[in-house]
Amino acid sequence: MAPQLESYYKAIDGLTDTFIDRLAEAVAIPSISAEEARRPDVVKMGHWLKSQLETLGASMEARELGKRPGKEHLTLPPAIIGRYPAKKDESKRTILVYGHYDVQPAEKSDGWNTEPFKLSVDSKGRMYGRGSTDDKGPVLGWVNAIQAHQKAGIEFPVNLLMCFEGMEEYGSEGLDDFIIAECKPGKFFEDADAVCISDNYWLGTEKPCLTYGLRGCSYYSIEISGPGQDLHSGVYGGTAQEPMTDLVRVMGGLVDTNGTILIPGIKDLVAPVTDDEQALYKNIAFEMSNLYESIGSETGIFPDKERTLMGRWRYPSLSIHGVEGAFSAPGAKTVIPAKVIGKFSIRTVPNMEPDDVDKLVYAHVEKAFAGLKSKNTLKVSLQHSGKWWVASPKHWNFTAAAKAVEKVWGVKPDLTREGGSIPVTLTFEQATGKNVLLLPMGSSTDAAHSINEKLDKKNYIEGIKLLGSYLHYVAEEPMSVA
Amino acid sequence: MAPQLESYYKAIDGLTDTFIDRLAEAVAIPSISAEEARRPDVVKMGHWLKSQLETLGASMEARELGKRPGKEHLTLPPAIIGRYPAKKDESKRTILVYGHYDVQPAEKSDGWNTEPFKLSVDSKGRMYGRGSTDDKGPVLGWVNAIQAHQKAGIEFPVNLLMCFEGMEEYGSEGLDDFIIAECKPGKFFEDADAVCISDNYWLGTEKPCLTYGLRGCSYYSIEISGPGQDLHSGVYGGTAQEPMTDLVRVMGGLVDTNGTILIPGIKDLVAPVTDDEQALYKNIAFEMSNLYESIGSETGIFPDKERTLMGRWRYPSLSIHGVEGAFSAPGAKTVIPAKVIGKFSIRTVPNMEPDDVDKLVYAHVEKAFAGLKSKNTLKVSLQHSGKWWVASPKHWNFTAAAKAVEKVWGVKPDLTREGGSIPVTLTFEQATGKNVLLLPMGSSTDAAHSINEKLDKKNYIEGIKLLGSYLHYVAEEPMSVA
Ligand SMILES: [Zn+2]
Ligand SMILES: [Zn+2]
Ligand SMILES: [Zn+2]
Ligand SMILES: [Zn+2]
Repeated sequence: MAPQLESYYKAIDGLTDTFIDRLAEAVAIPSISAEEARRPDVVKMGHWLKSQLETLGASMEARELGKRPGKEHLTLPPAIIGRYPAKKDESKRTILVYGHYDVQPAEKSDGWNTEPFKLSVDSKGRMYGRGSTDDKGPVLGWVNAIQAHQKAGIEFPVNLLMCFEGMEEYGSEGLDDFIIAECKPGKFFEDADAVCISDNYWLGTEKPCLTYGLRGCSYYSIEISGPGQDLHSGVYGGTAQEPMTDLVRVMGGLVDTNGTILIPGIKDLVAPVTDDEQALYKNIAFEMSNLYESIGSETGIFPDKERTLMGRWRYPSLSIHGVEGAFSAPGAKTVIPAKVIGKFSIRTVPNMEPDDVDKLVYAHVEKAFAGLKSKNTLKVSLQHSGKWWVASPKHWNFTAAAKAVEKVWGVKPDLTREGGSIPVTLTFEQATGKNVLLLPMGSSTDAAHSINEKLDKKNYIEGIKLLGSYLHYVAEEPMSVA
Repeated sequence: MAPQLESYYKAIDGLTDTFIDRLAEAVAIPSISAEEARRPDVVKMGHWLKSQLETLGASMEARELGKRPGKEHLTLPPAIIGRYPAKKDESKRTILVYGHYDVQPAEKSDGWNTEPFKLSVDSKGRMYGRGSTDDKGPVLGWVNAIQAHQKAGIEFPVNLLMCFEGMEEYGSEGLDDFIIAECKPGKFFEDADAVCISDNYWLGTEKPCLTYGLRGCSYYSIEISGPGQDLHSGVYGGTAQEPMTDLVRVMGGLVDTNGTILIPGIKDLVAPVTDDEQALYKNIAFEMSNLYESIGSETGIFPDKERTLMGRWRYPSLSIHGVEGAFSAPGAKTVIPAKVIGKFSIRTVPNMEPDDVDKLVYAHVEKAFAGLKSKNTLKVSLQHSGKWWVASPKHWNFTAAAKAVEKVWGVKPDLTREGGSIPVTLTFEQATGKNVLLLPMGSSTDAAHSINEKLDKKNYIEGIKLLGSYLHYVAEEPMSVA
C-alpha cells in the first residue's frame, strides 16, 4: 500500500532546508491584499509562485481578474493556475487544490516579537512570519511535494490542478466568477475529480483533523432614524424620540446571554442531531481548557466539550457586532445620534435556507419595533449572506486523507467542522459538483491574522509528507466510489 | 427713569459701523480652543480683547491658568479679567460679567457658505462667522457698551467686573479653581453684587428671554467585559458569552421610546410642579413647529408645547449616546468585541442630588445585569456630573434685566430655563453667593457650534443697548432688596 511513500518521505527530510528557505523567500514578499500600496508585492508574489512551479515543470498561467470593483485604478492580482504534470495522464485521478498567496497586514509595531516579513525560526522550531501558516506554508506544501517526488524519482500519483489566488484576505474579489467559469466544460478545471483546500487549522495542537463542514453567515443591519441631524441631549433630551433608545430595545430581544436566539422559528430550521452524529463529538481531541485558553477567560456558555463543540459547529449563533452612527470614541459626548445602524449576524447551519432566515429576522425585528410605537423609522436589511457547507466525510477524498494522516502522524484524524465560513469551499463544491476536503497543515496556536503568526517546522515538513501521501492514497481509492 | 438711555442709544446707532468692524476683527482671529495648533490664536485673541478694553480706560489683567492637564506642553490661554471704571465707585453696585473669547472649530469645507473666519454680512443683516454669536458678539457687547457711554458723555452706572475665558469650548479647563479663588475676600471678584452671563440664546427668533434655570448632567459608563481579546464570531459564536449581548439587554432597560426613565426611584427625586409654575409655561413664545424645525423631523415625544418645554427644562431625561469598543465603522465585521462600554447620561433637575442619582443608577444597572446570570464582568461608573441650577427670577438682577428688555425690545421677556448645562453658572453662584442671570443676545437660529454660525445685526446692536440698559436699571433697583 503506497510503497513509494518511504522514499518520498526521505526526499523531504533531505530537502528540509530548501523548503524552509523557500518559505522564507515567500514570507519576505509582503503580499498584503488589503493595502493598495502593497499591490505590486501581491502581484510579485503571484509571479514568484508561478515561476517556482514552472521551474519544476508545471504548466502555469497567470490569469487576470480585472479591476477592483469600486476602485477602478487598482488591478486585481492574478489567479495563478496550473497543472502538474504539464500533460494530463488520463489514467489518473485529477485533484484540484486551492490556496492563497496574499496575507493579512502586519507591522512590527503591532506587537510582533520579530520582523513580520522575515521568517524567524526559534529553538523550538516555531517559524514566525506573516503568511507562514496562512497560507504560504500550505501553498508551498504542494510545490514542495512536487519537488520531493522528483528528487525521490517516483511518479506523481495524480493530475494536480492548482488554483492560487491573491485576494483571499480581502474578500476574494473576482474569484467566484472565475472559478465558476473555469469549471465549465472545456475549461481549465473541468476534469477535477475532487477538491482539496489547505487553508484552515487543527482544532488543537496535537491531533490532526479533516474538516467536512462550515457554518454559513447572514449579516444584518437594523437602521433606526428620526431627527434630521445629531442633536444635543441637553437641549432635546426629553422632547425628541431617540433612535438609539429604540435600537438597544430591539437588539436586546435578539439573543440571550447563553446564546439562545430569541427570533421565533430559527430553531425549527435546524436539522435534528442524530445519535450517530452525537457520538462523533465524544472522541474529538478538545478540552474545555482549550476554549478558555483561546478566548482568554472562562466566560464560556457550556461547561462541557460536546455542547461547546456543537455550539460552535452544529448550531446557529447570533452575535451583535456594534452600532454605526452612535458615539464610539473614548470620553463623554452628549450627543443624541440621529441615525444609528445596529449590526448583527447569524451563523447558519443545515438546513437553514438563507431566505427563510431573512424572513424570520425581518418579521421579528419589525414586530419588536412596532411594539415600541415609535415615530422613528426602521429599516432592517441583509448586508450579505454565505451559505453553510457540509461534505460527506465518507467520500474517497476523505478516506484517502484519513489514511494519509494515519500514515504520517500515527493517529486517526478527528472529523471536524468549523464555526466560521470559507466561502470558496462552497463555490468549488457548487462549480465542480465534486467532493471538497479541507485538509489543514497548521495548528490552533498558529495565530493566523494576529501578531506573531507562525507555523511549526514539524507541521510544515510533516504537512508536505501529508499532502503527497494524500495524493498517493487518492490514487489507490477504488474508482467505483467516485 | 434711566433718562440717559436715549443718548446712550443714539451713540450706539452712531457707532454701528465701528461695532461691526470690531466684531469682524474678532472673528478674523481663529481662536479655536480645541485645536492645539490654534493655541497662539487663542492667546492672541485674549490679548486683543484686553487691549480693546484698555484703550477704553478699563484696568485689565491677563491671568495665566497654567498648563493644560495631561498635555503639559500646552499652556492654557489666560483669563482676561478687568474692572471698569478703573477705580471703583463705592456708591455703585458691582456687576460681574462673564463671556468666552474662544470658539468652536470651523473649516469652510464643513459646509460653510462663507469663510468662517471672515465676518460676512448679507442683505438681511445676518452676520455670518465663527464666534459671531458664541460668544464674541456678546463679549464685545460689553466693550461696545463702555465705548457708547463715553461717546454719549454719560456716567457708567455700575462698577463692571469682567471675566473672559479662552477655554470654554474645551471644558473651561483651569477656570473653576480660578473663579473660586478670585471670589474670596480680598481678591479680584470679591465685591460682585450679582453676575450676568451672556452665552445662551433666545428660545425662538422673535422674543427675548431671561434664563433662570439649567438642567444638570450625570454621565455614566456601563463596561461589560469577558474574553481576553476580541473574538471571531464564526469560531466563538455560540460558545462564549458575549459582552455586547449583555450590554444591549442592560441598556434596553434604561428608558423607553417616550423618554420615560425606567430606573426605579428617579421620578421620586423630582420636585413637584406647582400650579404657579405650570401657569408660566402657557404664555411662553414657543410652537411645536419650532421643535420640529430644529430637530428636522416630527419625531417629538409630546404633541403639545407645555409638556415639550417641561420635558426639556423641568423633568429629567436619559439619552444613550453610544458604545465604545464595539464595531462602529460602515461595512460588516464579524467581531465579538471583548469589552464594550455603553455611554448614557441623565439630565437632572431640582431636587435631584447627584449622589442619589448615582446610587439609583448603580443599583438598577447591577440588578439588571445580575438578572442575566452572565459570567461577564460589569463595571458601572460615573464619568462626570454637573448639578442643575435654578435662580430666583424675582431678584433685582432679573427685575432690572426684564425692564431693560421691555425698554429695548418693547416686550416683557419670557422667563425660561434651558435643558443643557453651562457649568460656569453654578460655579459663579456658589463662589460669589450672589444671584446669577443668563441674558442672551442671539436667537435660536444662530447655529452656534454648527456651520454658518451667525448673529443678526439687529440682535447685536439692540443687544448692546440691552446690556447697557440692564446696568442702568440695576443702578436704579432699590438697595434693600439686595
Ligand atoms: Zn487563509
Ligand atoms: Zn487568512
Ligand atoms: Zn458659548
Ligand atoms: Zn459654545
